[in-house]
Amino acid sequence: MSNKHFLPLDPGKLVTNCLRAITYEYEFMSLLEKEKVIYNNQFDRSKVALISGGGSGHEPGFYGLVGSGMLSAVAQGDIFASPNYKNVKAAEKVCHELGESVKWAGCIFIITNYTGDNLYFGMAAQDLIARYGSEKIRLIRVTDDVAVKQDANSLVGRRTLAGIAIVSKLMGAASQSGYNIDEIFEFGQRVNDSTASVNAGLDHVHISGHSMDSDFGKLGKTQLEIGLGIHNEPGVQKLDYIPRNEELVSTLLDMIFNKEDEGRGFFKYSKGDKLVLLINNLGGVPIIEEKNILYTTLETLKEKYNIVPARIYTGNFVGSFNAQIFTITLFNASTATTKTFTTDKIFDFLDEHTNAICWPNTAFRSKNSIKNDRIITDFVGYDDEVPNAIIEGPIDLKIDPKVLENIVRTAAQRVIEKEPDLTDWDTKMGDGDCGYGLRTGAELILQKLDEDRIAASGSILEVLHIVLNVIKDDMGGTLGAIIFIFMKSVINKVEELLREDPNQNISQLFATSLPFGLKTLYGYTKARDGHRTVMDVLIPFVNCFHETQDIDKAIQVAYNAAEGTRNLRPKLGRATYVGGLDDQIVFPPDPGAYGIYEILSALAL
Amino acid sequence: MSNKHFLPLDPGKLVTNCLRAITYEYEFMSLLEKEKVIYNNQFDRSKVALISGGGSGHEPGFYGLVGSGMLSAVAQGDIFASPNYKNVKAAEKVCHELGESVKWAGCIFIITNYTGDNLYFGMAAQDLIARYGSEKIRLIRVTDDVAVKQDANSLVGRRTLAGIAIVSKLMGAASQSGYNIDEIFEFGQRVNDSTASVNAGLDHVHISGHSMDSDFGKLGKTQLEIGLGIHNEPGVQKLDYIPRNEELVSTLLDMIFNKEDEGRGFFKYSKGDKLVLLINNLGGVPIIEEKNILYTTLETLKEKYNIVPARIYTGNFVGSFNAQIFTITLFNASTATTKTFTTDKIFDFLDEHTNAICWPNTAFRSKNSIKNDRIITDFVGYDDEVPNAIIEGPIDLKIDPKVLENIVRTAAQRVIEKEPDLTDWDTKMGDGDCGYGLRTGAELILQKLDEDRIAASGSILEVLHIVLNVIKDDMGGTLGAIIFIFMKSVINKVEELLREDPNQNISQLFATSLPFGLKTLYGYTKARDGHRTVMDVLIPFVNCFHETQDIDKAIQVAYNAAEGTRNLRPKLGRATYVGGLDDQIVFPPDPGAYGIYEILSALAL
Repeated sequence: MSNKHFLPLDPGKLVTNCLRAITYEYEFMSLLEKEKVIYNNQFDRSKVALISGGGSGHEPGFYGLVGSGMLSAVAQGDIFASPNYKNVKAAEKVCHELGESVKWAGCIFIITNYTGDNLYFGMAAQDLIARYGSEKIRLIRVTDDVAVKQDANSLVGRRTLAGIAIVSKLMGAASQSGYNIDEIFEFGQRVNDSTASVNAGLDHVHISGHSMDSDFGKLGKTQLEIGLGIHNEPGVQKLDYIPRNEELVSTLLDMIFNKEDEGRGFFKYSKGDKLVLLINNLGGVPIIEEKNILYTTLETLKEKYNIVPARIYTGNFVGSFNAQIFTITLFNASTATTKTFTTDKIFDFLDEHTNAICWPNTAFRSKNSIKNDRIITDFVGYDDEVPNAIIEGPIDLKIDPKVLENIVRTAAQRVIEKEPDLTDWDTKMGDGDCGYGLRTGAELILQKLDEDRIAASGSILEVLHIVLNVIKDDMGGTLGAIIFIFMKSVINKVEELLREDPNQNISQLFATSLPFGLKTLYGYTKARDGHRTVMDVLIPFVNCFHETQDIDKAIQVAYNAAEGTRNLRPKLGRATYVGGLDDQIVFPPDPGAYGIYEILSALAL
Repeated sequence: MSNKHFLPLDPGKLVTNCLRAITYEYEFMSLLEKEKVIYNNQFDRSKVALISGGGSGHEPGFYGLVGSGMLSAVAQGDIFASPNYKNVKAAEKVCHELGESVKWAGCIFIITNYTGDNLYFGMAAQDLIARYGSEKIRLIRVTDDVAVKQDANSLVGRRTLAGIAIVSKLMGAASQSGYNIDEIFEFGQRVNDSTASVNAGLDHVHISGHSMDSDFGKLGKTQLEIGLGIHNEPGVQKLDYIPRNEELVSTLLDMIFNKEDEGRGFFKYSKGDKLVLLINNLGGVPIIEEKNILYTTLETLKEKYNIVPARIYTGNFVGSFNAQIFTITLFNASTATTKTFTTDKIFDFLDEHTNAICWPNTAFRSKNSIKNDRIITDFVGYDDEVPNAIIEGPIDLKIDPKVLENIVRTAAQRVIEKEPDLTDWDTKMGDGDCGYGLRTGAELILQKLDEDRIAASGSILEVLHIVLNVIKDDMGGTLGAIIFIFMKSVINKVEELLREDPNQNISQLFATSLPFGLKTLYGYTKARDGHRTVMDVLIPFVNCFHETQDIDKAIQVAYNAAEGTRNLRPKLGRATYVGGLDDQIVFPPDPGAYGIYEILSALAL
């Protein structure tokens, strides 16, 4: 990621400003400013208080875990620094002001398993235990990271990753339901023991406010790390290539599931267990990639382990600035049950609404399982109605079938003949597809003339509707869209006029209708006369025919206009980005404009 | 941002995998796979259908706008490419399957004002108008971007930024409430006309799946752009420095509010109008920075314009991969009213719950305004209870006050004398604060001995509690926390034993209690004997005194251990990161371990 940042005048206020801002945004959150404690001001103090915290820089962790049915309060530290003793004590105290008659239910610290957090929450716990007794003050360490192997000599404990969101959600829901501290504490331990996570990342992260050339960008252009931490701790594996999602996800899931993997593999899973999948975006993974990781994880779980998760959660839980790192977390609801809490209860707890902002509140209707019948691959019929139901009948416009066929065939042939020039010009000034698009359409029209004899009835409207369908279905591109909108609008007007009076002079009818096509088109494109687009031919042609009803004159005007695009500098579209234009005085003609002229020229027949 | 990506084996499936994934995640969303249409499968087809769309790469736009009381469906295109005609037609059709008895309410396209989107939604609209009439098919362009000036010759219309979220929310709520297409269409126009946005960004974005050395990283290390687009369109201003938030936000707000700014300044605001603030994170702005931008925006609105927004929304609305770009969007609810929709109604619509995933569902209790009394700057009392209420009374432990004072004074003096060495050693191997922390504590103890005569009663427990408070409040650091946890736990045990039997031999009492301190400490740190920490002294000292009750012998053991840390390589803490260790066989002693030895040595007196 970049080492550039949006900073306040005083970067030392980064954390405080952040915490102040969220109290504006969320009415249920209050801030003890000096102590950097965010608490749920709606917390029912007769319930067991759940308190966590950690360094800043992990937003929306940890304030994002605070809310109804989740945490009561969090103590935040400075960036990547644990909260200190005072912060933790203040967080406990603010959840602990009771009336005379209310019995205090106790407090559980849910701590992130990092050195400083252990020590400062430990200090506070020791102090509170001396006051209230160890039955009222409990401490749970969240240890979901499977990356760090647990052997006898291991000095670093299993770290806390996004699993803290699940632990907090379930313990919080239990507290809100009024269970006692023993029940919630036992449950929390079981939930933690049933949760496993692992990170993968494309680079370390640059810390907001740190110097630009600080210790950042530790991975090379083609490197990736597995099992890295949330504070730039290096991964347990560094790869010299970036595996595709299928391989990467497979590796990560193996680290969670593989029971042979000594020192890891503590995650228990038996066939039929109900699993919850959580994908945590540490901040800088594009959402489209996050969803691809989710997709591949679902596919791999299904194919390799025959598992369909019962719940899916994705988003930002515990971040690291804008790190391009993600976490896969699995929680086994079936192994987290206690005497008090069944699997059903666990899913009720997961599904219960919370206002904590990091929890997705995804509404699952289905109990304990996800069934996906919501991908439709055979949707049809959105375009299969007869485009115009009134081709046969009182509204029609017929001419000699031979003349009609001749015009259409000539227009198509002229486009095909001109295609090499059009393509050449478009290659110089655009993306080169203009000529091919027109030729494809023209070839299909020729085929329909020969095979379907579309001009045989002499119906102008029938032919125009068929041509429109070819443009819509097979031509594509900006030019296709412009021709479609123009023609469709003209035809709509022609039909409207015919409905009013079926016997009209054809020239008069089109002279009246053509300007409506232009007017409609003006609503959808800013291109006008002189911008070196198809409009350079369309506008003068329409205006001339509207004024004179003289088709030969209008075609001559169109020819002059098409040739005239040689003198125009591009103002819109891809041609504006082509370098070296300043040296050129004469360009090739605009291929779209010239192509349309070739078509119109056939109307002289 | 980085040009590294998490990609599937077939990067061509990036969009489809993403859309498939969200149908697993959200039960209310269904996908027309070939057409890349996401629709709300709970949509009530008797209501006015609202359809939008746009290119992919803008996640959670545009599927994130689909849900109850927001959009009915969106047509997604490929990455940064508009949906085509078929996609748009399919999106309309899937919201338009009615039973015989239900009257069709019509459909409004809410389109993003980009070339392709205009043309393909335009094609679909023209086709549908021909079928159903222009009173049943409407089209609104969202044009909230104020960056592009609107002069007479402007070829690029005002673009669509995050304002589409507000337009979609309000029109969606109106549709859900059963208003008719005319009312909703008029309202949508008013909402759009009352919405203004502008982007600022630190760099362009690298597109997932594109080649690594493609057109990316257009901004230099100290450059920033204002008014850039969501598809890497360059900004209207490029700065050669990165302004701090206060300056940047002020510039952006001026672009919205300044009515003198010709061709811009279309945003109407009068004193007392109710404004809504939305901050859109395009994907790669760290959340702590996003919140700082929010904070500065709130401060600037208040100070410069005397405005407190009535609603605040932040997060991901319309993104651009992981771009370090944000949008400030302002919506004036007071100028968006129509005959049908009052300001109160508009706030009801904003507050109505939706399951659309990009909408924050922030629950505001206060009507039409935000009042923040939730920042508490004077929280006190979390640590002011008497630490131990039983100092005076049956449980106490007294010795000759002179001996007690001598021990405490000597310990403090020895720490102060050793501080230069400790600091020197810690500078070489750690962060250099160990010696200062110990000296600060020691100086305070000396002061309390002189001024408060804390040893005058000869109460060991009283002195220990006072020392503990000094460690907790004034010493800080890892070493302080470790000493606190150890001592607090030892004292807890001592007091427990004294409560059982007030008359005990002091040596016996501590010989029994000291191991409890170690045991507690083991719960909070993984440091053990040989890891070059304070534990190297603490562990042998405690063990020796526990076994022998011979303080002189235990002190000798502590001295040997402190000196012995010269031979230990660091295994934990900051010292492990210091380079060049491999060449050294003998290090300076561990300063924490040596400091503790100096304190313990005074016990020989």
